[in-house]
Amino acid sequence: MSLDGAAGTFLREQVGPAGPWRPQPAHALMPSRLTAQDLAPLAAIVGESHVQVDDAARLAATGGASYLDWARHRAGDRSDAPDAVIRPGSAEEVVAILAAAQDRRIRVVPIGGGTSVVGGLREDRPHVALVLDRLGVLLTVDEVSHLAVVGPAATGPRLEPLLAARGLTLGHIPQSWARASIGGYVATRSAGQASTGYGRIDDMVEALTVATPMGLLRLGRGPSSAAGPDLRSLFIGSEGALGVITDVTLRVRPLPTQRRYEAVVFPSFAAGVAAFRSIAQGRVTADVMRLSDEAETRTTLALSGPRGAASAALGRYLRARGVDVTQASLAILGWEGTDGAYVVDRRRATWRLLKDHGAVALGRRAGESWRRGRLDGPYLRDALMDAGYLVETLETAIDWRSYLDLHENVTRAIEDSLVSAYVMSHLSHVYETGASLYTTIIAVADQADPVAQWRLAKNAAMEVIVDSGATVTHHHGVGRDHASWLVNEWGALGLKVLASAKQVVDPHGVLSPGVLLPEDRP
Amino acid sequence: MSLDGAAGTFLREQVGPAGPWRPQPAHALMPSRLTAQDLAPLAAIVGESHVQVDDAARLAATGGASYLDWARHRAGDRSDAPDAVIRPGSAEEVVAILAAAQDRRIRVVPIGGGTSVVGGLREDRPHVALVLDRLGVLLTVDEVSHLAVVGPAATGPRLEPLLAARGLTLGHIPQSWARASIGGYVATRSAGQASTGYGRIDDMVEALTVATPMGLLRLGRGPSSAAGPDLRSLFIGSEGALGVITDVTLRVRPLPTQRRYEAVVFPSFAAGVAAFRSIAQGRVTADVMRLSDEAETRTTLALSGPRGAASAALGRYLRARGVDVTQASLAILGWEGTDGAYVVDRRRATWRLLKDHGAVALGRRAGESWRRGRLDGPYLRDALMDAGYLVETLETAIDWRSYLDLHENVTRAIEDSLVSAYVMSHLSHVYETGASLYTTIIAVADQADPVAQWRLAKNAAMEVIVDSGATVTHHHGVGRDHASWLVNEWGALGLKVLASAKQVVDPHGVLSPGVLLPEDRP
Repeated sequence: MSLDGAAGTFLREQVGPAGPWRPQPAHALMPSRLTAQDLAPLAAIVGESHVQVDDAARLAATGGASYLDWARHRAGDRSDAPDAVIRPGSAEEVVAILAAAQDRRIRVVPIGGGTSVVGGLREDRPHVALVLDRLGVLLTVDEVSHLAVVGPAATGPRLEPLLAARGLTLGHIPQSWARASIGGYVATRSAGQASTGYGRIDDMVEALTVATPMGLLRLGRGPSSAAGPDLRSLFIGSEGALGVITDVTLRVRPLPTQRRYEAVVFPSFAAGVAAFRSIAQGRVTADVMRLSDEAETRTTLALSGPRGAASAALGRYLRARGVDVTQASLAILGWEGTDGAYVVDRRRATWRLLKDHGAVALGRRAGESWRRGRLDGPYLRDALMDAGYLVETLETAIDWRSYLDLHENVTRAIEDSLVSAYVMSHLSHVYETGASLYTTIIAVADQADPVAQWRLAKNAAMEVIVDSGATVTHHHGVGRDHASWLVNEWGALGLKVLASAKQVVDPHGVLSPGVLLPEDRP
Repeated sequence: MSLDGAAGTFLREQVGPAGPWRPQPAHALMPSRLTAQDLAPLAAIVGESHVQVDDAARLAATGGASYLDWARHRAGDRSDAPDAVIRPGSAEEVVAILAAAQDRRIRVVPIGGGTSVVGGLREDRPHVALVLDRLGVLLTVDEVSHLAVVGPAATGPRLEPLLAARGLTLGHIPQSWARASIGGYVATRSAGQASTGYGRIDDMVEALTVATPMGLLRLGRGPSSAAGPDLRSLFIGSEGALGVITDVTLRVRPLPTQRRYEAVVFPSFAAGVAAFRSIAQGRVTADVMRLSDEAETRTTLALSGPRGAASAALGRYLRARGVDVTQASLAILGWEGTDGAYVVDRRRATWRLLKDHGAVALGRRAGESWRRGRLDGPYLRDALMDAGYLVETLETAIDWRSYLDLHENVTRAIEDSLVSAYVMSHLSHVYETGASLYTTIIAVADQADPVAQWRLAKNAAMEVIVDSGATVTHHHGVGRDHASWLVNEWGALGLKVLASAKQVVDPHGVLSPGVLLPEDRP
């Protein structure tokens, strides 16, 4: 996406002019810090050809897609490249690799799509990257139970066509869909754009196999259990620090034959939030529910909305229905299914509640347009950085009662911590008791010290989030960037419980050290 | 309920005649094995009046509602009575009690309603019962977020009227509703009779506070989180072995204003299972979905169905619609909500699928009749034991593909392990990927050694369950009776993880030892 034309004008007006931010040539990789004695036992397990130490392989296995990662890479810094890349061919080989790595105290960072936005893959000490692309995509399908056993080589684009051939879909569509792996979804408790209808990834996991230095765990029997604590939940979201997910049994759904996406405008974000709450609590949710605040709505209209006379006509259309376009809050609603009549029923029930909150229909074209463009965000981010802008997102979730206060306080904290920031948010997952809040920040980048600038804004936002009782992260995970706040989520005793679990499966701490659980580093 | 008339005749015909099983007078309680030195520090925390050692208090705090518990008690055996009863007045007092108990290595068994059917409260070594009825019922309500903070003194009958006064309901209705505590629901991962629509209790928990000998844990922020593993799931289902739940933040729902329950008959259990599967996978579920197999259907018709001419008329009505009454499978479906039109829509969508599987409507009267009688089971059990019958239930869950095989194999294994057993089952919770199976067993009791007779049947059923990949328990928990099978659910490494969590919060193992995690007892 280019920043010429409307987008460039909008940015200069709203954020201010910025100088281009030119990527520096990548520094030469430092030679692999692993010795022949380190690598020989690994090669004995997977075969020589599946242990790579050349620059190309190491760079290809360097992950991370956070603003901090991109800023580092833009400066030419590749110190987070692994010292070797290992590609095991089976779950048993993964266990053997982990045990061998433990013997020699070699750090192991499992990597899927490399799309962590929270520093989950950022490691500059000697380590191997465990790449799982030989372990299969779709291993088995149970078409009666609607269960698919999926391997760690699966990504959305690889998996969905195989499922579609059987009339099924996973329906998990995060913005990282093009690259993220299914194992990564599970390891980070991912939520996709249709998660209101399809559920978070944690809702889809019936069973999983986890390889650890101490052996394999096979967790999950049947659709649900009361056999004590749910140990699956300790490994879902474990971000590579408690093991390597070698397969996942996922609930899949019939591929929808009916689909209706439409756009709606509310007179204010508060009205939209009230409508979404009533829909969630009335249990008449659409499968996709997304509500932009006033700032995000203005951006959307400026960048992709109608122009000129059409824009004026939209303003008149809304005004006639009691909506001031400058205060408007844009929503996308999508219903999917195989029973056309029931899709219609569900939409009608949703609309009964939408109308109570002053919703004005914008029709299917705008809805479909959002659906087609919904994976473009990451590409836009690169263009914004090229143009000299800091662009970062953060997300959380909170109960309905505190939702608007949190939105206001997070927005203000970020605006106060940055010079001339443009802050815009949306709500993209509703629960009966609350909803997610996803905030995008654009500011003129401090190219001299982007990390310090980022940290200031991040700390300001996190302080508000933690103080308000919201979750540290709703769907991006902990990584390194949130590790210091994990104690706010689970408490010191909770972290001890988590650390004790790690101690059992990874007693020497070779698995993604510093990720998830904070580490005392000298 | 009396076993005269139709019920008695049915039992004698189907199971065989049995002699009455007379309860023996309760043995005298052994004197409390706790010393004044044991009790003084506890009394210093909660006050003298909240430490009771008299027989009446100890007997009232003796729990357990399994067949084994009832058979023991029927023999006069009260060796599982606690040595003292402690009633703390706050969460902080609970922590202090647990720490003091740890200091003196006194076993602590938290007790809610005392309705464990898996030996979760059966302890014959010296111990104190921790009774939580001073800790409040409904602590706070957030009517915007639909969240209620509930104390451990809450039971269904205490909580629901308080919620109803605000137009809300929890909607969790297990058969133990009259007595079970909400903390007990959470500690055992309970599922109620409307769990298809309202969710299992684990689906309702947004946050919980857990007191342990090492301090308080406060787990859960916001409606959902990706902040690493979900530690709530380690304490939901922890059955008193990892801590004492001192409050729970639960999602509540609007009290339904519309309610429609109806009965349906399928030509066979297999047809009903296929229908229920298509409904679950079509995501058009009713809130209550219950399907009896042929044996349970015959029992229901014999005990509470129409008699004489009316019964013959029912046979003709079904036959005219292609259903042989002797092969019939009875289902109950219930829809609830606040939007009448949407309740109608949902019912219509369900019926489109029901018809594909040969369902015949029996109307609302039979549905309402089930709803009114749905909590009677436990009372019937006492009457059956009085009449000399073993009566036991077991439950599991499995994927749809294996459902009918499991049903057949469990039924046969139990029939083969007992002389002339009557075995009947139902399905009462559907998931997209599978369903629960709940089996009731009636046989002539071996009054001389009911434990040995029970163990034979239990082992036979559990072997089938474990071998088929089904869960050890879908909604009754582990207790002592399932503890030896927990390794089949989570594996040896999984149990080590669980034991390490216990080690952190209860390093001296004073909390419900032997419950959940098997114990090496000398």
